[in-house]
Amino acid sequence: MQGEVAHASNGQAPPAPGGALEVADDLARAFAATAVERDKRGGTPKEERDRLRRSGLLSLSVPASLGGWGAPWSVVLEAVRRIARADSAVAHVFGFHHLMLATLRLFGSADQASRLQAATVSERWFWGNALNPLDTRARLVRRGDGLAVRGAKSFCSGASDSDMLIVSALDDATSKLVVAAIPTRRPGIRVLDDWDNMGQRQTDSGTVELDDVEVRADELLTTPGPLGSPFASLRPCLAQLVLVNVYLGLAEGAFEEARRYTSTRRRPWIAAKGTPATEDPYVLLRYGDLWLALEGARLLADRAGAAFQAAWEQGDRLSPEQRGGCAIAVAAAKVATSRSGLDITNGMFEVMGASATAASAGMDRFWRNLRTHTLHDPVDYKSRELGAYALNGAIPEPSFYS
Amino acid sequence: MQGEVAHASNGQAPPAPGGALEVADDLARAFAATAVERDKRGGTPKEERDRLRRSGLLSLSVPASLGGWGAPWSVVLEAVRRIARADSAVAHVFGFHHLMLATLRLFGSADQASRLQAATVSERWFWGNALNPLDTRARLVRRGDGLAVRGAKSFCSGASDSDMLIVSALDDATSKLVVAAIPTRRPGIRVLDDWDNMGQRQTDSGTVELDDVEVRADELLTTPGPLGSPFASLRPCLAQLVLVNVYLGLAEGAFEEARRYTSTRRRPWIAAKGTPATEDPYVLLRYGDLWLALEGARLLADRAGAAFQAAWEQGDRLSPEQRGGCAIAVAAAKVATSRSGLDITNGMFEVMGASATAASAGMDRFWRNLRTHTLHDPVDYKSRELGAYALNGAIPEPSFYS
Amino acid sequence: MQGEVAHASNGQAPPAPGGALEVADDLARAFAATAVERDKRGGTPKEERDRLRRSGLLSLSVPASLGGWGAPWSVVLEAVRRIARADSAVAHVFGFHHLMLATLRLFGSADQASRLQAATVSERWFWGNALNPLDTRARLVRRGDGLAVRGAKSFCSGASDSDMLIVSALDDATSKLVVAAIPTRRPGIRVLDDWDNMGQRQTDSGTVELDDVEVRADELLTTPGPLGSPFASLRPCLAQLVLVNVYLGLAEGAFEEARRYTSTRRRPWIAAKGTPATEDPYVLLRYGDLWLALEGARLLADRAGAAFQAAWEQGDRLSPEQRGGCAIAVAAAKVATSRSGLDITNGMFEVMGASATAASAGMDRFWRNLRTHTLHDPVDYKSRELGAYALNGAIPEPSFYS
Amino acid sequence: MQGEVAHASNGQAPPAPGGALEVADDLARAFAATAVERDKRGGTPKEERDRLRRSGLLSLSVPASLGGWGAPWSVVLEAVRRIARADSAVAHVFGFHHLMLATLRLFGSADQASRLQAATVSERWFWGNALNPLDTRARLVRRGDGLAVRGAKSFCSGASDSDMLIVSALDDATSKLVVAAIPTRRPGIRVLDDWDNMGQRQTDSGTVELDDVEVRADELLTTPGPLGSPFASLRPCLAQLVLVNVYLGLAEGAFEEARRYTSTRRRPWIAAKGTPATEDPYVLLRYGDLWLALEGARLLADRAGAAFQAAWEQGDRLSPEQRGGCAIAVAAAKVATSRSGLDITNGMFEVMGASATAASAGMDRFWRNLRTHTLHDPVDYKSRELGAYALNGAIPEPSFYS
Repeated sequence: MQGEVAHASNGQAPPAPGGALEVADDLARAFAATAVERDKRGGTPKEERDRLRRSGLLSLSVPASLGGWGAPWSVVLEAVRRIARADSAVAHVFGFHHLMLATLRLFGSADQASRLQAATVSERWFWGNALNPLDTRARLVRRGDGLAVRGAKSFCSGASDSDMLIVSALDDATSKLVVAAIPTRRPGIRVLDDWDNMGQRQTDSGTVELDDVEVRADELLTTPGPLGSPFASLRPCLAQLVLVNVYLGLAEGAFEEARRYTSTRRRPWIAAKGTPATEDPYVLLRYGDLWLALEGARLLADRAGAAFQAAWEQGDRLSPEQRGGCAIAVAAAKVATSRSGLDITNGMFEVMGASATAASAGMDRFWRNLRTHTLHDPVDYKSRELGAYALNGAIPEPSFYS
Repeated sequence: MQGEVAHASNGQAPPAPGGALEVADDLARAFAATAVERDKRGGTPKEERDRLRRSGLLSLSVPASLGGWGAPWSVVLEAVRRIARADSAVAHVFGFHHLMLATLRLFGSADQASRLQAATVSERWFWGNALNPLDTRARLVRRGDGLAVRGAKSFCSGASDSDMLIVSALDDATSKLVVAAIPTRRPGIRVLDDWDNMGQRQTDSGTVELDDVEVRADELLTTPGPLGSPFASLRPCLAQLVLVNVYLGLAEGAFEEARRYTSTRRRPWIAAKGTPATEDPYVLLRYGDLWLALEGARLLADRAGAAFQAAWEQGDRLSPEQRGGCAIAVAAAKVATSRSGLDITNGMFEVMGASATAASAGMDRFWRNLRTHTLHDPVDYKSRELGAYALNGAIPEPSFYS
Repeated sequence: MQGEVAHASNGQAPPAPGGALEVADDLARAFAATAVERDKRGGTPKEERDRLRRSGLLSLSVPASLGGWGAPWSVVLEAVRRIARADSAVAHVFGFHHLMLATLRLFGSADQASRLQAATVSERWFWGNALNPLDTRARLVRRGDGLAVRGAKSFCSGASDSDMLIVSALDDATSKLVVAAIPTRRPGIRVLDDWDNMGQRQTDSGTVELDDVEVRADELLTTPGPLGSPFASLRPCLAQLVLVNVYLGLAEGAFEEARRYTSTRRRPWIAAKGTPATEDPYVLLRYGDLWLALEGARLLADRAGAAFQAAWEQGDRLSPEQRGGCAIAVAAAKVATSRSGLDITNGMFEVMGASATAASAGMDRFWRNLRTHTLHDPVDYKSRELGAYALNGAIPEPSFYS
Repeated sequence: MQGEVAHASNGQAPPAPGGALEVADDLARAFAATAVERDKRGGTPKEERDRLRRSGLLSLSVPASLGGWGAPWSVVLEAVRRIARADSAVAHVFGFHHLMLATLRLFGSADQASRLQAATVSERWFWGNALNPLDTRARLVRRGDGLAVRGAKSFCSGASDSDMLIVSALDDATSKLVVAAIPTRRPGIRVLDDWDNMGQRQTDSGTVELDDVEVRADELLTTPGPLGSPFASLRPCLAQLVLVNVYLGLAEGAFEEARRYTSTRRRPWIAAKGTPATEDPYVLLRYGDLWLALEGARLLADRAGAAFQAAWEQGDRLSPEQRGGCAIAVAAAKVATSRSGLDITNGMFEVMGASATAASAGMDRFWRNLRTHTLHDPVDYKSRELGAYALNGAIPEPSFYS
């Protein structure tokens, strides 16, 4: 794996962004070989996470001026998608790592972002997520002349084996949400190994307990703070875009496995009287329908990525309307990838037949992974947002899910 | 469990058919308690199979004159459905046990049926399936002045821990399909423990190897033989009806679990602004749609059951047209239960939310079980049969799947 | 048409209810011959309405003791369905005629019902609808020592050429809804000819203007009055059931026309390489799917009819829960017939091909009629009612639409 | 209407392609004002066709070197789409006019194309279609030392009021398909006024009778002739793309009308308890779903247009594989626009309510037009082509429909 070697040594200039996708493909191939087995096992994909560290892709979204690849978001999201073809769990924590890096820039000051992103390159940090606004147990409290976080957070994807965390808490004084970047190894932090779900089993989306964890002033991201400006409000857009590309890559991976499987079947069915499966009229029709849904979702996802990149480049000049347009493009891609992905991971069995249900093939993991992940936030409410836009011209009010 | 006790002693008159459904409900409750754990484990549900033996329900379809319950098929199929609410794997082998008993009557002579059904009551036999016409490896050969079967059969649901088997083979002399009823313990029979699938994990639908297994003349079911008359051709109708009721019970069980789960959720979603999940407009809409699909499938399944019972009662007077009408009613129920079941086992997550994906809840087993089982034969070809009937008035040509 | 002759002379005993369906079939055949032409023309189907008068079917739901056929509601609704196969506009006003007769019994006293139903037989009255609770323009006012209605009502199906009207108004004194049965020819009533819609063009669902129309005390239906008891609340159930059977008959008629059309096509499509349309795999699949949807809807409609008849027979003993169960059965049938009907009237073209769009064939009338009629009340809210029942066990609160 | 004036005088340089879309928008506005009325009337939209002539848009696809606008296909197709928003019948004949011009270039020699396209600009010709390969009645025969066509063609869109025709016939000598460009006014040609369909009523897609019509040698397009090369085989791709853009524009027009209608409704439904229609949860959900389908279709249509333009620019260098890729992109857009369009033109009524069915609003014309036009060739066979590509990597064999 050339890419992996090339980026193994810190301080070296990373290759052009184009090369990143080959590195992602190499990683995907490696991850694919053990995906079925690791899905059964669950737990932290330590080997795969270290491989990501060595590949250099953890600095993919870091500006070149800070030692990163300086890749545009389209490339970062395409890398997420390609890894998801083989392993949607690893793809999710990889994508969320870059979401955490972006959070520094979106919620914090330019200084904070530069300092922490540069350290991400030099220290090969892997970032985890402890920002879950629906779980209000964590509080920011005054302790002597300092600050501390106390409580817990659920659904903390990628916190296990992480080096740094983005943590959210409610400020006891103001009841407002605050967000901080702190090292995972800081005293008082306990990352529980309590994620055992039917899908996305290696995302470590378990609980983080925070037992009076010190938070330093310069670790709080307050300029402009969470959703503090239209530009800062791009954070949920990027979070959703990571999901979009995980869903899409997962569906592409499922489709490709189905295609490979059907191609080896000699006949479809006794009633088909000798026609091979690859020429069966119903098999062809179903493939056509699944493929078309995938194509449409792909175009919507690409367009949303481009819309996000354009909004990102606006920086603080980004207007609420521009942010709204971006959010709608992302929401459209979210609904389309959710639905087409469920159709594919469910419908693929009808074009493969009963033998494809052997546990050794692990074909059910696609559906289990997508079914689990698409529950992140309800798709009907996303469709409602699209409707409000289409009917009333209303743009979504920025929130952590819109 | 009263029913269990009541039927534990052989020779006693079984209660009226009505009581059978209470017994089935009792069994379902017991099976439900361990269903998630057994789904993980796979293998033979020995404890549950023995419980079925003790319950007396294995003689549910045996005429009262032979010591059985003498239940009509509507009751047998309803019992299958109720057990499937808790455990679709056990329900499948239970239903197929009765299919094997019916096979004696449909393919064999009145004498053979009487003798073997009476023995089923007295010996508490559990029948397994080794009749798979798509697998042509098993052959009937002449050996000295006797007959033997040689080869193998795949997808032999319920063969493990069975007492008797219905075996099919191609006659070497005539190339015709022959079917025999033989004891599972006869020398030369090896029931492999090689079923490890993503769903229906405790159906033991693995391979049976037949190493020159003796077949006695009176074990061959040749009067009128497989599909040898319109009445004999009811066998695939009953096989499909067992599937219909397994699918339906499974979907009912999934729906009920979802209902219970949603009822405990306090709120649906941040965007719903305080509305509890049970009043959320989209949650209600989705429940309405899923429930309606279930209702429609239920009516079609009941009607198909009634059509089968009417055809069964015709016996040898059954005309090809009457058999065709029954087959169409069954096919309609098959397509409807397949589709609505997939919608429910997939869509139930959207009305439960992300927490329902915890592995401990085992909610994915519904989809995995149904997805696996609905691949028994392709639903598009069943829909085509319905179309040929609706458009051209054509009835399905009897086969092992139509 | 035998039936027509048989019932032409008043005072004669009508034949057994069974015969009613043959009469309905005869009428349907006659209406079919001119349905395309009359759809184009719009306006009042005077000839067809008079034929209905002569057929005796206007007394179909009237008890035999009052000189009617004494048919159960299953027969009345089946007659609606059969007429709708040929002409859904005439079927609607025919069904609503019987709804008006039922309204006398449900909202009024036994005396009022007996008197007016007997007169319906002897005078061959055709009843029209001016009960539209969503249109609140009509008011009941005191005028001297009498009462009068003043205002207007929209969507008054079957008011043109009617003999009697059921009129609703808001009582100026109490603001409550009152309902009365008055002759259409009473001074002050003007039935406008202003219904010109894209579908159901001969239902005369236009405006009735009420210019200080006298209402006599014994014409007010106040015992127990509108929705005044669980039994009285069956009125919307019956209204919805009439729609259900109109939708279903319409879909059956469309399906049969499509079947006939496809049967005459020699080939489906150049890509099908010589396969005739009747053997084309996709044509068969589509027919299977459409037919199955129709079958499911049919069973739900039949069950709802039976549930209504059972509730009707309870009379004043009907409990709110029993009424609720009936309302749910009806709502299920409503959603299923709406959706399957739209699928059929839209999808039928794909199995007929481009030539079926000739204006002379008038095949679009099925979709136009159903699309118009299914907007009577929103199907999503019906589905929500089903969901509230399935999830929360809630029965619909009686209203004019639930 | 500036654009119209600007292009009224021949010989003047047309404005930049960009301006073409404003001209198209102006035309659409004018056509919209009479669309409902003209849909009722049917027949030839003479006034609108002349307006198109005067607008200059008939030379939109003609190279600038020949006096045309020299617009790329993306602009031509966008113009078709915009006109279709107001009037899908006129849009169809407008799009097919440009298909006929392209046919000169694709099937004929460079000389033929140049000469006839230049004359199209100078004479303001409107081209009509008499190329229907499924209708094999027309034959090319030898007559003395010349050639003649004899027979008839059905579905000849835009033949009425046309100046030139593209005619196909089977060569009596070789049984091969030949295509010629001849003046509509040539003796022996009779354009029948026999198109009276439920939709696309002003496309004049009737019959052309050919009574021994002279065909000159230089009118035959034989270099390379119909489908005579990969480049020539782009003709069906363009034909399908015109349909794609007609369907899409039509759906956009329907969506916009629905949006406008719903925006004026004060409340959705009695059960919604005061919520205005524009805030009703189900209305918003449905709008979201319809809009999303439209967006996906739009992206697929745009991509197909770009693929076509790229293939067109390859000219004779176009490989079969490149042509196949273009055909697949077009087929994907065809299926997506067909399905989403039917969903929109059918589902729009549910978000508008019963009042929207008034005949005066003419809202049913969208569905009637699309339903008629989408039967041009069966969508299931297109989906099958997509499936063969996705599963087997097979590209469609060039034909007049693939």
